Amino acid sequence: MTTTTNRIFNFSAGPCTLPLEALERAQAQFADYEGQGMSLIEMSHRSKTVDGVHNEAIALVKELLDLPDNYAVLFLGGGATLQFSMVPMNLIRNGGSADFTHSGAWAKKAIGDAKLIGNTHVVWSGEESGFTTLPDPASVQTTDGAKYLHLTSNETIGGIQWQDFPDVDVPLVSDMSSDILSRPLPIEKFGIIYAGAQKNIGPAGMGLVIVRDDILEQCPDDLPLYYNYKKHAGANAMLNTPPVFQIWMVKLVLDWLKEKGGVQWSQQMAAKRSGLLYDAMAASGGYYRCPVDEAVRSPMNVVFRLPSEELEAKFIAEALDNGMSGLKGHRSVGGCRASIYNAMPLEGAEALASFMADFAARNG
Amino acid sequence: MTTTTNRIFNFSAGPCTLPLEALERAQAQFADYEGQGMSLIEMSHRSKTVDGVHNEAIALVKELLDLPDNYAVLFLGGGATLQFSMVPMNLIRNGGSADFTHSGAWAKKAIGDAKLIGNTHVVWSGEESGFTTLPDPASVQTTDGAKYLHLTSNETIGGIQWQDFPDVDVPLVSDMSSDILSRPLPIEKFGIIYAGAQKNIGPAGMGLVIVRDDILEQCPDDLPLYYNYKKHAGANAMLNTPPVFQIWMVKLVLDWLKEKGGVQWSQQMAAKRSGLLYDAMAASGGYYRCPVDEAVRSPMNVVFRLPSEELEAKFIAEALDNGMSGLKGHRSVGGCRASIYNAMPLEGAEALASFMADFAARNG
Repeated sequence: MTTTTNRIFNFSAGPCTLPLEALERAQAQFADYEGQGMSLIEMSHRSKTVDGVHNEAIALVKELLDLPDNYAVLFLGGGATLQFSMVPMNLIRNGGSADFTHSGAWAKKAIGDAKLIGNTHVVWSGEESGFTTLPDPASVQTTDGAKYLHLTSNETIGGIQWQDFPDVDVPLVSDMSSDILSRPLPIEKFGIIYAGAQKNIGPAGMGLVIVRDDILEQCPDDLPLYYNYKKHAGANAMLNTPPVFQIWMVKLVLDWLKEKGGVQWSQQMAAKRSGLLYDAMAASGGYYRCPVDEAVRSPMNVVFRLPSEELEAKFIAEALDNGMSGLKGHRSVGGCRASIYNAMPLEGAEALASFMADFAARNG
Repeated sequence: MTTTTNRIFNFSAGPCTLPLEALERAQAQFADYEGQGMSLIEMSHRSKTVDGVHNEAIALVKELLDLPDNYAVLFLGGGATLQFSMVPMNLIRNGGSADFTHSGAWAKKAIGDAKLIGNTHVVWSGEESGFTTLPDPASVQTTDGAKYLHLTSNETIGGIQWQDFPDVDVPLVSDMSSDILSRPLPIEKFGIIYAGAQKNIGPAGMGLVIVRDDILEQCPDDLPLYYNYKKHAGANAMLNTPPVFQIWMVKLVLDWLKEKGGVQWSQQMAAKRSGLLYDAMAASGGYYRCPVDEAVRSPMNVVFRLPSEELEAKFIAEALDNGMSGLKGHRSVGGCRASIYNAMPLEGAEALASFMADFAARNG
């Protein structure tokens, strides 16, 4: 077994760094789970062991997000991209409409798919600002006939986050791929929360979907099997063979999060980590520029520019030489981005902030 | 790290036994992949390393199945259940129809979803026989307007397998979840082959989809993003964040299969393993009864009954005490079932055949 002594700080936007404790626990049991003579990923998904791991993962999501009993927790293959169409298939295919806020690249994908399935309205768009800001949540209005209001709680590429959520008469549906379990939520506002697992809670290849009872009741009977939330919920998300490995890893990551102190802890840590980086920018005298409106800066994805693209390339390369990877901005926008999800140690943000100051001093 | 000295023979229908060599290779690199200071499942899916593993997995599928250049290989989250609707969404949603052979529980699910999306015809059904037989492939006829003929190459629950495939004027579409890569294929007959990974090629949570170019050209532009084979193929199956772990495991399993001798080897081994079990039944003087027509008995899933349900329960329990698990038949049909996919060692089938003889002698 290789050692993990050379572990580096991985600022990738997702897949991304996971808690080393969770990885090592999985590794220890990988080929022989609890002495049962086989790997967990070789066991029937109907076995007591897999069922137990699955139910523990569900219970951890419920406990950590303080979910009332009228929410179902589903772990579904396909990730958030499948949810872009699955939500409207369940809610607006047979009538009604959906309202959207357009906050950037991920909101755009959700809107694009919904448009193909039913009626949609974009009730707010950040396009003119270059997706660097968000509206005052209190100002967001829905349209007549809307069955839900969709928002992307954190835009991974733009580096913006809804700090609070609109108060509207319809359920909120939110893509929380990049900030799920990073803060407490006013859960009663939400009808559906979905998130690709590969940022805050586990490896890629699965979506976490949280659905309220009244939404489940609206799912049409004539949807194909895999698309139907109600059928998944009725089978406790074992309608088909689930992604057992990802469920196991989510359980291990959430065990770790619970041990650390839950979403109160992750929220505090996110503020500390991002604070170090935003402060480093402020202290740089304009060397590092964050394009995002201060009020909505993301504590998960910190985007920034340097004085030139050449310096950005140099910064990214030197950071890698110093044990910090994944700092290149998304190819659609360029620049730099530090993704600092729950599993990023504070030391990672400290190292990056220190490197930023040093790099600016050397390349001013 | 726990040892694997107590490894048992796991006859589960899927998830199921995987090659110990592949599991141990994954375990060794699990928390630190090739000394890069992070796990493979923490790396960006756009990284050279993940891209490399992904392309190697694709290349192995192409090599082992001897796929011509006009077939694309996709690894998609959601498993075979999602394919039940994805195939008709791409091929018959906007017109035309699909022909189906109804061979059992899995074919029924594929038919059920297709019916909700477009026109379907069942051109052959095994319902009257209790799904214990299949038609002569040469006798299968398609209907006018059919865009494809669907078949389930191996029915996991019923324990039957198409030994040869129909010659028809339309492309075959086949669910090969339970016998993919267990034998060479007349690939030119197939337009689409799909398979949940969790039987012959890896862990649960992913579907392998093989699609021919002319099928890709038929995919409608107005399908939601995730459903569109053409868009997945255009992005080399990186349209969204793929299930990296499963892709890695498939690569490791297929490395192992290639080292062993590819599909010629797996076909020979399947014949040996299943031969041992079918021979044990024949030698039992009617103690063990296989309900399946001899000509279509599956080399992957061997189903059998004992003289009573009590004896079946005793058989399953004693087998477990003797290091053989997962022998209970599917809950919908009862009885016993030994699933003996590629990774089941010959010794597992030998042990089971020997146990069957011994049990019958003691409980005759």
